[in-house]
Amino acid sequence: MILLTKTINNITSLNLESMENVKKRQSQLTKPLGSLGRLEDLSIQLAGIQCKTFPVLKNKAIFTFAGDHHVVFEEGIASAPMEITAQQVENFTRGGGAVNALANHCGARVVVIDMGVATKYNRSEFVKDKFIDYGAANISRGPAMTRDQAIRALEGGIEAVEEEIQNGLDILGVGEMGIGNTTPSSAIYSLYTGLSPDAVTGPGAGIDDDILKKKIEVVQRALDINKPDKEDAIDVLSKIGGFEIGGMAGAMLGAASHNIPVVVDGFISTAAACLARTLNPLVDDYLVLSHFSAERGFSHAADHVGQKPLLDLGLRLGEGTGAALGISLADAAVRALTEMSTFKEAGVIDVKEI
Amino acid sequence: MILLTKTINNITSLNLESMENVKKRQSQLTKPLGSLGRLEDLSIQLAGIQCKTFPVLKNKAIFTFAGDHHVVFEEGIASAPMEITAQQVENFTRGGGAVNALANHCGARVVVIDMGVATKYNRSEFVKDKFIDYGAANISRGPAMTRDQAIRALEGGIEAVEEEIQNGLDILGVGEMGIGNTTPSSAIYSLYTGLSPDAVTGPGAGIDDDILKKKIEVVQRALDINKPDKEDAIDVLSKIGGFEIGGMAGAMLGAASHNIPVVVDGFISTAAACLARTLNPLVDDYLVLSHFSAERGFSHAADHVGQKPLLDLGLRLGEGTGAALGISLADAAVRALTEMSTFKEAGVIDVKEI
Repeated sequence: MILLTKTINNITSLNLESMENVKKRQSQLTKPLGSLGRLEDLSIQLAGIQCKTFPVLKNKAIFTFAGDHHVVFEEGIASAPMEITAQQVENFTRGGGAVNALANHCGARVVVIDMGVATKYNRSEFVKDKFIDYGAANISRGPAMTRDQAIRALEGGIEAVEEEIQNGLDILGVGEMGIGNTTPSSAIYSLYTGLSPDAVTGPGAGIDDDILKKKIEVVQRALDINKPDKEDAIDVLSKIGGFEIGGMAGAMLGAASHNIPVVVDGFISTAAACLARTLNPLVDDYLVLSHFSAERGFSHAADHVGQKPLLDLGLRLGEGTGAALGISLADAAVRALTEMSTFKEAGVIDVKEI
Repeated sequence: MILLTKTINNITSLNLESMENVKKRQSQLTKPLGSLGRLEDLSIQLAGIQCKTFPVLKNKAIFTFAGDHHVVFEEGIASAPMEITAQQVENFTRGGGAVNALANHCGARVVVIDMGVATKYNRSEFVKDKFIDYGAANISRGPAMTRDQAIRALEGGIEAVEEEIQNGLDILGVGEMGIGNTTPSSAIYSLYTGLSPDAVTGPGAGIDDDILKKKIEVVQRALDINKPDKEDAIDVLSKIGGFEIGGMAGAMLGAASHNIPVVVDGFISTAAACLARTLNPLVDDYLVLSHFSAERGFSHAADHVGQKPLLDLGLRLGEGTGAALGISLADAAVRALTEMSTFKEAGVIDVKEI
């Protein structure tokens, strides 16, 4: 709890001076002011986070937090066998996942973090071990984990960030792998948006309408039985969360406390963002929502976090794939800011000065 | 005319076998089918264009076609001085423009092509010379150019592609630089969408409401005086177009005839796409609309071309900046297709086979 408290208390507002410097520079570059749209806004945000007029995005990492969820198997609402979580963790460590391909695209390294994979597998040296337990318990019958485990999940995410800073870390993408983790995420969405479970529960990786109906009932039951206190994110995480969701929320807090921008992946990571911002609302300013998840209810949670995601490409995979594309856009934003000439340098007329 | 006719006749339908192969592979990769959304669609399109199951995007180029437009200066509706076109051309050749920064981001080279810059400038070895005349004539008083010049503009774009193929060319972004070129583009939009000029004419790089009103009248007058025949793209280009718009349309046809995908930049390049597809509707399949231009009326033209752009980031700059971001997404799509493991390779359960 000491690490968590310290981390939460270390998060500050963005650096206004750096943001003003970037705003000024954007008006001096050889283009009409505002004509690069959201890339300009993004450059200003990144400067405010890093406290630098010229943000640096040299070292990029994507954290893929893995964990399992017994609720979907015990209640018969899973889209796929539980073993796939472990199999995909192995696949990611060998570089064969979608997140690996898209991390290559944006020049990020992938760090796979086992928070609570239920199936035993050949844990390689490439998996970061923050393991807490073999999958979160059935949230429709009781809490997902103990309060102590919830704190350890959050601190595991913080530790992962602080360990990775040793390797250089300028921007962090946060994603996940966990068969069934849309179910706890929908419960978290319902709690924080105030919407009923049917408005924020979708088919995940793929279930039919009958099972979707059952899934909505499971989400409702998880809320009814556990009665999580939405003002207390640790309570929420322990009752209706999951280990990897806690890890992601912790990573968001940890990155924010070290002035590192966090690119949020999709549906499940936005549920983690709901938890992180409850622990310290200042974390919002450090988050970049990468894309509109195609999963039902996502836009309500994005509104709750107060952001419009950058991309809308129909992605619904998770892992950190959307975060990778978001990191790529952050790179584009910083390149435009730092590599373009000013009107003066280029000898181009600045119409604002005519 | 021989090159133009030959090029138009050489454009074929996409390769269905390659597309089927990619569809099959997408279902075998370690992710739920369709979960990478539009990246999967894009990978299929690129395969169909290149006639390859594993599309290659090694050599990337962005063509920035430059030209001027006397209409906006003679009619007092310009947002900026004409000299800026030439100044920006010089800026781009020195690597200082937004298009250079974003081309660096996506790993593309920038080729600046002078189709009809009006101001004299120090033409460096880095500018490709397809110059036709010192700016398109005032389209609100008569035609932009002669029919012969329109054909030369189209063929200049084709030649630029064929010359660049010598350096290796797997994907082409098409953008432009030309103060005032939203005016002819709006006239082309109005002609092809059937909408009145006020629905497809916006403030461009920045004019006030009074001048916008005047701009809309100019667009209407250009259509009334010239009476372009929308079935005859050469007639349209010669009457209400511009040299760089012709160059872009030619480049689209040229690339399509050589099985090279074309990423279309924004407002002005989509006007060029309207011309290219009139010359051969098959060109549509070779185009990837990169982003929703923030300029009024863009979405109607995108609908006309039959595509939903990939991105919506409030960009309204041109040059090829949107195309650069689109090329980056194409790279992501191809990486996912080619670098991911299949279920079999990764030892991951394929739920479709359970």
